[in-house]
Amino acid sequence: MSSRPAAHRAHLLAHRPDRGSTEPLLRWTEVPTPAVGPGQALVRTELLSVDPASRVFMSEIRSDLPPVAIGAVMRGYGIGQVVESRRADLPVGARVSGWTGWQEYQLADDAQLEEPFTVLPQPSRGTAPVPSEHALGVLGLTGITAWLGVESTDPRPGETFLVAAAAGAVGSVAGQLARERGARVVGIAGGSDKCRYVVDELGFDACVDRHDPRWREILDAATPDGIDADLETAGGEIFDRVLTRITPGARIALVGMIADYHADPQRRHGLRNLIEVAEQRAVVRGLLVTDHSDRFEEITSQLAIRLTDGRLRAVHDVVDGLENAPAALDRVFDGTGRGKILVRVHSSDDER
Amino acid sequence: MSSRPAAHRAHLLAHRPDRGSTEPLLRWTEVPTPAVGPGQALVRTELLSVDPASRVFMSEIRSDLPPVAIGAVMRGYGIGQVVESRRADLPVGARVSGWTGWQEYQLADDAQLEEPFTVLPQPSRGTAPVPSEHALGVLGLTGITAWLGVESTDPRPGETFLVAAAAGAVGSVAGQLARERGARVVGIAGGSDKCRYVVDELGFDACVDRHDPRWREILDAATPDGIDADLETAGGEIFDRVLTRITPGARIALVGMIADYHADPQRRHGLRNLIEVAEQRAVVRGLLVTDHSDRFEEITSQLAIRLTDGRLRAVHDVVDGLENAPAALDRVFDGTGRGKILVRVHSSDDER
Repeated sequence: MSSRPAAHRAHLLAHRPDRGSTEPLLRWTEVPTPAVGPGQALVRTELLSVDPASRVFMSEIRSDLPPVAIGAVMRGYGIGQVVESRRADLPVGARVSGWTGWQEYQLADDAQLEEPFTVLPQPSRGTAPVPSEHALGVLGLTGITAWLGVESTDPRPGETFLVAAAAGAVGSVAGQLARERGARVVGIAGGSDKCRYVVDELGFDACVDRHDPRWREILDAATPDGIDADLETAGGEIFDRVLTRITPGARIALVGMIADYHADPQRRHGLRNLIEVAEQRAVVRGLLVTDHSDRFEEITSQLAIRLTDGRLRAVHDVVDGLENAPAALDRVFDGTGRGKILVRVHSSDDER
Repeated sequence: MSSRPAAHRAHLLAHRPDRGSTEPLLRWTEVPTPAVGPGQALVRTELLSVDPASRVFMSEIRSDLPPVAIGAVMRGYGIGQVVESRRADLPVGARVSGWTGWQEYQLADDAQLEEPFTVLPQPSRGTAPVPSEHALGVLGLTGITAWLGVESTDPRPGETFLVAAAAGAVGSVAGQLARERGARVVGIAGGSDKCRYVVDELGFDACVDRHDPRWREILDAATPDGIDADLETAGGEIFDRVLTRITPGARIALVGMIADYHADPQRRHGLRNLIEVAEQRAVVRGLLVTDHSDRFEEITSQLAIRLTDGRLRAVHDVVDGLENAPAALDRVFDGTGRGKILVRVHSSDDER
């Protein structure tokens, strides 16, 4: 079998955000498919994860990975299948996860990539295979982020746990995990439909619709005893209001600040209530999931158990076609998505 | 001996800050000296501490203590002597520390005060008595705050420790303690005189003059390897710049944010770089010294050892006369003071 076309499609980074240009940030084009040399394999992308971090990669915000170079293929994490191989650990047909990029084919060359591709675990005998969507969602980096965020903020029975973007990939999982610990769980989400979903389907105790002009007062009313633990993904005005509700000794896990992913600080929200962290002796802890790779196996096992026994509900929002990846990323930021947002690049079965 | 006058002078809170009034915040007036009932004693104030927290007490910023009521005596911590007593634990002549208030006499009544007065330790046989200034400075809450702040940010040999208000009560002690641990210590202070003092007298490795229009670039140059540990007392624009220099895993102790002590959030600096805490996986820990009273004895012993053997230099700036307490507080905020700022209310020896 030779699945390798001479050229394939990719999104290249054309401009950085926040530079005032109205041109698209990405250029959708054809690039040559690389030849497979010794110690290399070729992976065909099936599913691509789009995340808040994608925006960081495009910008010059300081992070653990360097910004994507202008003209380079956009960085992204995905799942694919090995279609050509000259290395024993990645045989043809193996299904793998790794930095596929926003493109149809990626060369699996450990010397060139930030980290090696990993072969997806085989299902145990007699169990159903884990859907790829889960491997990039609740059993992937977003689920692990939610787990670590809940663990780090340690919500206890009777305490109030808050998560913004409650219908999103991280928030939806985190709220369910915090509730399992006995905390009162309050979410913030965009729109009354989403809020109903968060309460009725995911079991949150309350949800604040941030599209309601009175959202600040509604948040206050939904947290009558204050906020003891906050998994922060939103930043901006919402986080500023959350800070006014924290209790003495509150724990905040700072996973992201979607509202503030601008390299130009002047475009970010000016946070005015951090003084509450001093006065309330709170702790704000920056959390990056990839620092904790030694715990991934343990955490995904815990999440898989909960997914299987029904304690945890996982939601995906799959956008079809790599050409639609920029639109999928917009959904991450405009809050129109629900759960983990993914892009289907190739069906995993075609050509088989 | 009866030292009790019928009336004494006090500063009463007249207005809250940030209300747009140009009237003085405090009213300097006479109040009746209370009679001493059973279980009470009368303390004559000798030295009064003025602190950034004084501003918090005047305002309606949420804190561990309620705001001072309008018309009430301004809250303050000081040292005094018992001049009348109907309780055995506070005999006449005893020198005590506690919430004296900004007034000449305070009734030591445990039911009415936030915490009881404490008798100052007697000097050990053969050692000199600790000057009262030390008991309110390096061996009091400011020194303990510096100790806890350094402990909490854990600067290690070769790391860079930063403290703003480096010539101030907390900063001057913290920098010396961090240097003892082997860290490279960088201070920020207002004016080239103060910066020279911080480097030449206190032994800091570098000092950034925040009055220099190029202070941002100077800070960058003074921290070529970034900032690993920050004891934050300043807030405002300085903290915002410090955040752009933090290294992965940086530790920040948020002790105060002098620039941001406004009850009206709109008057505070809008902090734009907290996203760095997420991206750098830093920890920001709010620290309130009074939460750690079980450790005061241990920590003051450690500080006293260093004061005695010369490892630690302590500086006070004593303003004479209770009437000048508001001006002394201004010095805390305008940065014209050096070291711990105190107000001498009564000499400890007059009338003896």
